[in-house]
Amino acid sequence: MAKKPLRIGLIGYGFMGRAHSNAFAKVNHFFELGHQVVLQALCARNAEAARSFADRWGYGSVETDWRKLIERDDIDVIDIATPNNTHAEIAIAAAKAGKMILCEKPLALNAPEAEKMTKAVQKAGVANMVWYNYRRCPAVTLAKQLIDEGKLGKIFHYRAKFLQDWTISPDLPQGGAALWRLDVKAAGSGVTGDLLAHCIDTAMWLNGSIDKVSAMTETFIKERKHNLTGKVEKVGIDDACAFLARFSNGSLATFESTRYARGHKALYTFEINGEHASIFWDLHDLHRLQYFDHRDQGQTRGWRSIHVSDGDHPYCKNWWVPGLQLGYEHSFVHQVADFIQGIESGNLAEPTFKAGLATDYVTDAVLKSGKTGRWEKVKKVK
Amino acid sequence: MAKKPLRIGLIGYGFMGRAHSNAFAKVNHFFELGHQVVLQALCARNAEAARSFADRWGYGSVETDWRKLIERDDIDVIDIATPNNTHAEIAIAAAKAGKMILCEKPLALNAPEAEKMTKAVQKAGVANMVWYNYRRCPAVTLAKQLIDEGKLGKIFHYRAKFLQDWTISPDLPQGGAALWRLDVKAAGSGVTGDLLAHCIDTAMWLNGSIDKVSAMTETFIKERKHNLTGKVEKVGIDDACAFLARFSNGSLATFESTRYARGHKALYTFEINGEHASIFWDLHDLHRLQYFDHRDQGQTRGWRSIHVSDGDHPYCKNWWVPGLQLGYEHSFVHQVADFIQGIESGNLAEPTFKAGLATDYVTDAVLKSGKTGRWEKVKKVK
Amino acid sequence: MAKKPLRIGLIGYGFMGRAHSNAFAKVNHFFELGHQVVLQALCARNAEAARSFADRWGYGSVETDWRKLIERDDIDVIDIATPNNTHAEIAIAAAKAGKMILCEKPLALNAPEAEKMTKAVQKAGVANMVWYNYRRCPAVTLAKQLIDEGKLGKIFHYRAKFLQDWTISPDLPQGGAALWRLDVKAAGSGVTGDLLAHCIDTAMWLNGSIDKVSAMTETFIKERKHNLTGKVEKVGIDDACAFLARFSNGSLATFESTRYARGHKALYTFEINGEHASIFWDLHDLHRLQYFDHRDQGQTRGWRSIHVSDGDHPYCKNWWVPGLQLGYEHSFVHQVADFIQGIESGNLAEPTFKAGLATDYVTDAVLKSGKTGRWEKVKKVK
Amino acid sequence: MAKKPLRIGLIGYGFMGRAHSNAFAKVNHFFELGHQVVLQALCARNAEAARSFADRWGYGSVETDWRKLIERDDIDVIDIATPNNTHAEIAIAAAKAGKMILCEKPLALNAPEAEKMTKAVQKAGVANMVWYNYRRCPAVTLAKQLIDEGKLGKIFHYRAKFLQDWTISPDLPQGGAALWRLDVKAAGSGVTGDLLAHCIDTAMWLNGSIDKVSAMTETFIKERKHNLTGKVEKVGIDDACAFLARFSNGSLATFESTRYARGHKALYTFEINGEHASIFWDLHDLHRLQYFDHRDQGQTRGWRSIHVSDGDHPYCKNWWVPGLQLGYEHSFVHQVADFIQGIESGNLAEPTFKAGLATDYVTDAVLKSGKTGRWEKVKKVK
Repeated sequence: MAKKPLRIGLIGYGFMGRAHSNAFAKVNHFFELGHQVVLQALCARNAEAARSFADRWGYGSVETDWRKLIERDDIDVIDIATPNNTHAEIAIAAAKAGKMILCEKPLALNAPEAEKMTKAVQKAGVANMVWYNYRRCPAVTLAKQLIDEGKLGKIFHYRAKFLQDWTISPDLPQGGAALWRLDVKAAGSGVTGDLLAHCIDTAMWLNGSIDKVSAMTETFIKERKHNLTGKVEKVGIDDACAFLARFSNGSLATFESTRYARGHKALYTFEINGEHASIFWDLHDLHRLQYFDHRDQGQTRGWRSIHVSDGDHPYCKNWWVPGLQLGYEHSFVHQVADFIQGIESGNLAEPTFKAGLATDYVTDAVLKSGKTGRWEKVKKVK
Repeated sequence: MAKKPLRIGLIGYGFMGRAHSNAFAKVNHFFELGHQVVLQALCARNAEAARSFADRWGYGSVETDWRKLIERDDIDVIDIATPNNTHAEIAIAAAKAGKMILCEKPLALNAPEAEKMTKAVQKAGVANMVWYNYRRCPAVTLAKQLIDEGKLGKIFHYRAKFLQDWTISPDLPQGGAALWRLDVKAAGSGVTGDLLAHCIDTAMWLNGSIDKVSAMTETFIKERKHNLTGKVEKVGIDDACAFLARFSNGSLATFESTRYARGHKALYTFEINGEHASIFWDLHDLHRLQYFDHRDQGQTRGWRSIHVSDGDHPYCKNWWVPGLQLGYEHSFVHQVADFIQGIESGNLAEPTFKAGLATDYVTDAVLKSGKTGRWEKVKKVK
Repeated sequence: MAKKPLRIGLIGYGFMGRAHSNAFAKVNHFFELGHQVVLQALCARNAEAARSFADRWGYGSVETDWRKLIERDDIDVIDIATPNNTHAEIAIAAAKAGKMILCEKPLALNAPEAEKMTKAVQKAGVANMVWYNYRRCPAVTLAKQLIDEGKLGKIFHYRAKFLQDWTISPDLPQGGAALWRLDVKAAGSGVTGDLLAHCIDTAMWLNGSIDKVSAMTETFIKERKHNLTGKVEKVGIDDACAFLARFSNGSLATFESTRYARGHKALYTFEINGEHASIFWDLHDLHRLQYFDHRDQGQTRGWRSIHVSDGDHPYCKNWWVPGLQLGYEHSFVHQVADFIQGIESGNLAEPTFKAGLATDYVTDAVLKSGKTGRWEKVKKVK
Repeated sequence: MAKKPLRIGLIGYGFMGRAHSNAFAKVNHFFELGHQVVLQALCARNAEAARSFADRWGYGSVETDWRKLIERDDIDVIDIATPNNTHAEIAIAAAKAGKMILCEKPLALNAPEAEKMTKAVQKAGVANMVWYNYRRCPAVTLAKQLIDEGKLGKIFHYRAKFLQDWTISPDLPQGGAALWRLDVKAAGSGVTGDLLAHCIDTAMWLNGSIDKVSAMTETFIKERKHNLTGKVEKVGIDDACAFLARFSNGSLATFESTRYARGHKALYTFEINGEHASIFWDLHDLHRLQYFDHRDQGQTRGWRSIHVSDGDHPYCKNWWVPGLQLGYEHSFVHQVADFIQGIESGNLAEPTFKAGLATDYVTDAVLKSGKTGRWEKVKKVK
């Protein structure tokens, strides 16, 4: 096999470790690339669990100390799939070691950390990317293409929400293992960093930068038991957050996220209203894009439900045939494919750490506004 | 008021008597017509009930014998809203008396009766119409316009169904008063005459005549108590009927109706697939027309959900503003408006008795095929 | 006829004049009431147009000066269907004259005016109501019943929007006749008073009072020609408005309205998320209520699309049969029916002027916050 | 690794060859099984193309003669992913060689062939399965569970359709390579064997055996150029087929399939109406199951849109988290997982060849009825 290997060292084997591993394992089956992805090593503190995960996925070796992984010569890419509070230290060390870096979102606990990470990869000149995977659901990528083609014209409105319902019970503990997203020390924030960060990343990709925000946050359950310590502690994360925003292009926006919306598992939706056309997307039916074009003939104008699965839809010719739907996991495969094409072409795939930092600037401003009750300006990435 | 009166004599005050009365009462409020509809007389055997209904709706007088109503000089239009087994006798008498006639659907118990009625109105030269109201849901009328404009091209397929679920309980009696539709003597047939007749009328309006049919019928509950006699009797109606059909234009069709489909109250749907475009409509969301046009640009092709409420949609400029939906009753108002415009222009609104007879030819062939198990040819109206 | 007449004097014959007249004309056909509505008089400045409207709807007489109408002894109810800037003066005079009053929404140009009107009707002790008709779409009334039964439990979130797209063209003039809603002098505000007022009225009915708001408003087209004067003038209304809110029960809310959302004619939607269940409604499919109940058995849990047309759904037994849908206009008929039952029972139907004032307090706070950029407290009705 | 290898020899590398290979490659990543699937050998006539496919997917070796593959000692399972006209010969030889066999659907060109294949695997006592993958879309499996739990009660109606639109152009050739499905010699029939076979397999799984059918078939384009020969030849396949059916449990059914339904790529839908509840599923939104339960409280009854992605939904706990959707390919992974569990437990996963034969009996009867115009009895598998 003439392909150049791309040797992955994955850190973390939780939900995201699986999603990434699946993408690494599949990408060469479906995409014509110059590199062959190799599952080289898996790193996690628990040696036994790490070995089991490595066996299942075919990782060639196991490490229990991420510093050792980074030191290894036979690793090209460090993939960070650990809780948010570890991203910065690992990424900065990996950059210094000259590794390419893939980092789970949000990039860091907060923007100051993210700034350091961004500087580190820029200084090291290593390829880098943040796993904001939803950009690469084919329907979302199609939305981007339609906007770039000018189909919408001047944009008036953007609205996004990300609704879940899994933390309503007061009996749910607030952290430990799979529940670290509820622990403010590990996660940095609640829905703002976990869910709204996705909405913001997509929004800025589709509609440009955000100037200012006015937010409202809430923690409905004030105290929860911690899974590991067993102690009832104050809850530090935001259970819900809604904010108003102004984009630099003058459009108005509303964003909202919560884990207290009964009936919604992972309802990420966005809508964008332009002078000529509007677009709506919904993660619960991720294979469809809703599109309304005012230039259609009057009597037959209507919202079009585009079943994004045709050969001329983004990424789709690499998969099955029209009408046969892709799912959640494919967005990760597409991101790996684009990352590899980026390093092959020298034109790095987005979002890089710089874009991840831009999102962290917004989430920081949102969290600040939630406290001050004022409109807060959003810092811009230089 | 310079308008010419159009004096209605309504026979029957059941569900359809109300629907027609509402249309008569509203039509001049919303449509600019040369005639003013006058609710002149209401006829029903029960004098007290008739009086109460007349008071409520503003009918000027009451009759208890429809022959007397027909004899009256101050009645222009006889509206027949009685059970099916009475249509023929009343209509033939009314035609002889020179009255215009509106008749509930199906036109008659069977085609031979309907032939006599059709001859009678033709001989008398009186205006006549059958209340196949669904043609005049704005979305259905729009479908007709799109087809007539050639938007669909050659037609390959037609499929229609009308599903209900109100007779599943074996405790439901089979006739008497509001339940006459379950009594074969009063109704002539079950779902075939009651529901499929609607589907067939629309189908032939949109897609031309039907050549042959192959049907399957079923009576799930074999015996039921009769409401009036109290006796358990054999059920004579068809609870369900499905049939295959060939249209004269070569297209294939499936039709189905039942009162045993849990979850569907009055789910009349039709879909038509043409070379270039397809159309779908659904009585449960009657204000929408689903439209797919293959000529749309490839990446943004999709089923369009047309919210039929704009000023340039059929009938809509007479009502509210875009986005505000009409309901079931409006189809009747539209039919009265068109009937009046038809008598004013001399170009009678469809469906006349002749079209009603054509539908009865199909339902007769369907019922016959259900018995013979063979494909049956459909007689054509000359 | 033993029924007591309820003699209506309608002022204004625009869009709302028609909607109200239709409700007056229909209500006794479908609802059993102690009063018979009589279309007694129509008042408008243009005598010829008023006469034409009165003829069409059957109003017995015409006035061109509303003061004269109010003075008449043969009028029981004054119905105000004129632009917002005339509501206060007419209503106060009508109250002094001891008339019952129906007033189009919003109650007034602003809360101070609305306070005077509310005091006037309270002082005069006359029946009064504001035409927030959407409360009486059967699906919305059903939502209220489900909430009152406790089906949702503690409420966490409320979100509502009202999206239109009819003012995007810069060539549209900003006022005169049918376009008075775009003229700040006649309308008081733009989408806030016209559309968000509806959202707020429903929201407070379903979820209680609102404590504070943080708003963002925008006027996309800064200057437009005035239809009557022909002059290009600064646009004074808000084209779009979004706001965050806190209800007194602790729940978080987002509200948004615009006339710049392509593809939406009158998309009023609301969603409410409770501990146990959630509800969603949409004016574009007003006959449906979406309902999710977490207490359903796990594997078959899902959003239920309730087709609100059964006999045990609010108002529905008065109309047709299950599955046959009502439309926009029926909400007005229901409101008249309830108003009449209210005056018969002595328990006045809501929303009275007091409730209308509560909504004006919210819209005033919203408009203020749009200017100050701060959270603003909402004044409460005593 | 203590797992026993399950060494696959795949024949064919077309669309289905890819779908199966993906399932083989993924299954051990997501399912805990006693066997480790090994992509041992790929067989195809074109050596170069075979090598390329094998490299991409990691097949260890390549054969160009399927007889050689069958002879190999290091192959446990023969997977047949070749055109229909080759299934019988290969399967019978593989059975004789004692291999386990996976065979693409339909099992054979016709029932007599399928009978021989079924006898061969029974005689050899080898594990066998037909790739009717849609049974294992989680929503379809859930439907089966609900039916088995008795949630629907007595079944009255079944309706299924499979609509496509990819052969409308008369310029499309009728065979060769990827188009063999249009060549009657390779495919045996058109939509009946290709698409309706899926509908029939699911239907009999959910609702039991079919007694008799009455069908109508059509070939809209009578002649097409053959891709390989370049000659214009008569088209032998059915472009469309609709049929009525009676199940042994007394329920009525309609089935329809076509490749001439504009707007539908792969719209496989089925609905089943029972005494208490109804179910609807749609391949275009395969992650949802529509469910109506009449036993729900009256006012809140409605069709539930079940988002089949929760941990207690079939297969879902092996994948992501609630709300994150699976796609088409996952049905194949599930089928491999179940096949392996079947050989481990000794209780073979369905559908085996016997079930595949039962479907071929139905399609043969359908094709016969399409010619005779009569109701045809369906032969039953003993």
